[in-house]
Amino acid sequence: MNDFPIVNVGICGLGTVGQGVWKHISRSRAKLESRLGARLVLKRASVRDLTKKRSVRVAKSRLGDDPMAVAKDPELQIVCELIGGTTLAKDITLAALRMGKTVVSANKALVCEHGPEIFSAARQHGGHYFFEASVAGGIPIIKALREGLVANRFGRIYGILNGTCNYILTRMEREGLSYPIILKEAKALGYAEGNEALDVEGWDTAHKASILTYLAHGTWVPVKSMLVEGITELTQADIQYARENDYAIKLLAVIQRDLKTDALAVSVAPTLLSRAKVLANVNKVYNGVSVTGDVVGETLYIGLGAGQDATASAVISDIVDAIALLLRGNAPLPEPIEQNCPLNKPELIEGSYYFRLDVKDEPGVLAKIASVTSKSKVSIASVQQRPSPRKGAASLILTTHLSNEKAIRATVTNLSRLDAVLTAPLLLRIASFDD
Amino acid sequence: MNDFPIVNVGICGLGTVGQGVWKHISRSRAKLESRLGARLVLKRASVRDLTKKRSVRVAKSRLGDDPMAVAKDPELQIVCELIGGTTLAKDITLAALRMGKTVVSANKALVCEHGPEIFSAARQHGGHYFFEASVAGGIPIIKALREGLVANRFGRIYGILNGTCNYILTRMEREGLSYPIILKEAKALGYAEGNEALDVEGWDTAHKASILTYLAHGTWVPVKSMLVEGITELTQADIQYARENDYAIKLLAVIQRDLKTDALAVSVAPTLLSRAKVLANVNKVYNGVSVTGDVVGETLYIGLGAGQDATASAVISDIVDAIALLLRGNAPLPEPIEQNCPLNKPELIEGSYYFRLDVKDEPGVLAKIASVTSKSKVSIASVQQRPSPRKGAASLILTTHLSNEKAIRATVTNLSRLDAVLTAPLLLRIASFDD
Repeated sequence: MNDFPIVNVGICGLGTVGQGVWKHISRSRAKLESRLGARLVLKRASVRDLTKKRSVRVAKSRLGDDPMAVAKDPELQIVCELIGGTTLAKDITLAALRMGKTVVSANKALVCEHGPEIFSAARQHGGHYFFEASVAGGIPIIKALREGLVANRFGRIYGILNGTCNYILTRMEREGLSYPIILKEAKALGYAEGNEALDVEGWDTAHKASILTYLAHGTWVPVKSMLVEGITELTQADIQYARENDYAIKLLAVIQRDLKTDALAVSVAPTLLSRAKVLANVNKVYNGVSVTGDVVGETLYIGLGAGQDATASAVISDIVDAIALLLRGNAPLPEPIEQNCPLNKPELIEGSYYFRLDVKDEPGVLAKIASVTSKSKVSIASVQQRPSPRKGAASLILTTHLSNEKAIRATVTNLSRLDAVLTAPLLLRIASFDD
Repeated sequence: MNDFPIVNVGICGLGTVGQGVWKHISRSRAKLESRLGARLVLKRASVRDLTKKRSVRVAKSRLGDDPMAVAKDPELQIVCELIGGTTLAKDITLAALRMGKTVVSANKALVCEHGPEIFSAARQHGGHYFFEASVAGGIPIIKALREGLVANRFGRIYGILNGTCNYILTRMEREGLSYPIILKEAKALGYAEGNEALDVEGWDTAHKASILTYLAHGTWVPVKSMLVEGITELTQADIQYARENDYAIKLLAVIQRDLKTDALAVSVAPTLLSRAKVLANVNKVYNGVSVTGDVVGETLYIGLGAGQDATASAVISDIVDAIALLLRGNAPLPEPIEQNCPLNKPELIEGSYYFRLDVKDEPGVLAKIASVTSKSKVSIASVQQRPSPRKGAASLILTTHLSNEKAIRATVTNLSRLDAVLTAPLLLRIASFDD
């Protein structure tokens, strides 16, 4: 081993993931080094607060509080950016890349917002940027898309990409409790952040969908061009309907590409998914992604989407790939071809829909509602009336045949205007992914 | 594109998979070339019978009937061995590797039987040997184990690795028909080979388990050192028991490693798997693999395990990887570290079991059976009596608490000796994979 070349790695940020990376590399260093034919040295790390206690032992001489000093250390070949955010993280990333280093990251927001600039800096200065950990935690889904399925064009990719939402939905389903109660428990148990908005309103999922879209289609779709809805309005009435009709409700990212026109449509929304689908049975904090390629057919990838160890597993895999590349001259990797596919306007996305609305419990209401839907050319597939917790009210659940977002949105607006409709209708998508 | 370097690829064998590779490379050549920065030329192919009609158009000048001439053609950098078998395929593979070429293969039997010799030839002559298509068709499971999960040690890997068996089991379950009837239909529809023994008796699965074991543990386990049982003795009585008790019956390969002693146990057997497990819901010709790593937790990979297109997807991914490596100097890849883990004798494998046996329908039989099981120190968890198609007989189904293969085999032998037992007991494993 003494004649092994040395590769120095620095870590910016020793939070949960950073400590996981440090711990697992320290533990399996001998195995990794023998596999690589190189010495893997964790040379230094930066933290925000030097006095904070950590679960991993890092020699004082290797620890500082200036991430930029790590990024610019000329002795390091690889820098892990694990501080998160899109400001300092971006500066650190670009500084390291501009010195020709390779940067490994778990930062989905950064990739999503500044991907083109970062990738171009890596190319220009002869380094690489790896981000396997940014989507679906420890599941090697980015490697699958970039390498394993390279022969394919992808008509549909859909998945559960946010563990917090899936955890909340699973518990709502299993325990029959309301969203606010489960959210509170999820926070107490550490499954949801103090500020949960990014997760439960769908933006975290949208960031990941944007990354998958780029990898699969070479096209950057900003989250503001997607249809994005969260899970905060779901109630037990929805969960119960799903159970009785053999569905699960999942917050799904759906990336569709029309293989004839190449038009892309990207959406994130709570969706009724048939229990016959494997992903309907992916529960708790697990993530799952279905990738349909025109050559391979449907493939699925399931695993823990977050957490110290799962994320560290992905980061370490990237570090090992980065070192293997370095040892072979660090030439550029095959990249997704820029395709700039046209983007379907969200309102043109087609599908079937589920509405739940509270209405006055009086004769003639259904006729008024039916008149509204037929004006918007939305064809109703089923109607169910259920008791409402509200006095003098009933809860109506409608499902539709194939329609599109524009017609549905018009319907929601017009329904809300009816005197007999007491609350804004809740809208869910119904997945109709044929086998 | 005119200044792109040229990479010449030859294909030995234009059967189903070979034609798929030819077709899909021809179709997506521009995309692959632009991604790689190289020209990908399908220079020549060999077939057994030059007069046979094929679904892909190959210029006569590129077609011959001598695979060895392809393997030794000095103009080719990459040779795909798609003829199958372990004799001529081995000669071709070694001949190409000895010329420093890279060989891409879908040949699980060859890897399994001659892996060390092949890998060593590749290393020695500066080429590579890729075999993603040999396990689980288009699912990039080999890439996941070698690269994506490199930070992990694998306590348990289990999977459905044979599409023919899974197809037969799914149809037996859904249609209530007997094994021989479904097998006949599967043959007529092309889902089973004319000679189905390799598939239904478990040997194909065992070959794939051997490859996964090497990739995950750096240890070659020959199929003769595994416990291997097939699905040929299953009846509707077993399927019905499974359904009533919320199990599916799957032919599972199970690779266990005791992370304390490093001892490996590899088995292939029809197994009762709880429906709560994702793989219990993987049906028809789909394959699925569960990989539990000590860092990442459980991850799952699901997709088509065979067929022209799925297999071609994996072969093309290997060709692209091979070309990317070539363009970067073709240096060796990180390989599994040879570990030579000790092998648990199959008879020491522990688990719970299911027996079904036809017995004389007379008093005292259960007592005799219970006496046999208790002598072998096998503890019975449940007993069910069902009608037997045989006159004057009853069918008994027993399940056990935790036991091991040795005790179970002794029990089977001793039960078979009882006068009251009319047929050799059918034995199934019950998976007890905790979450």
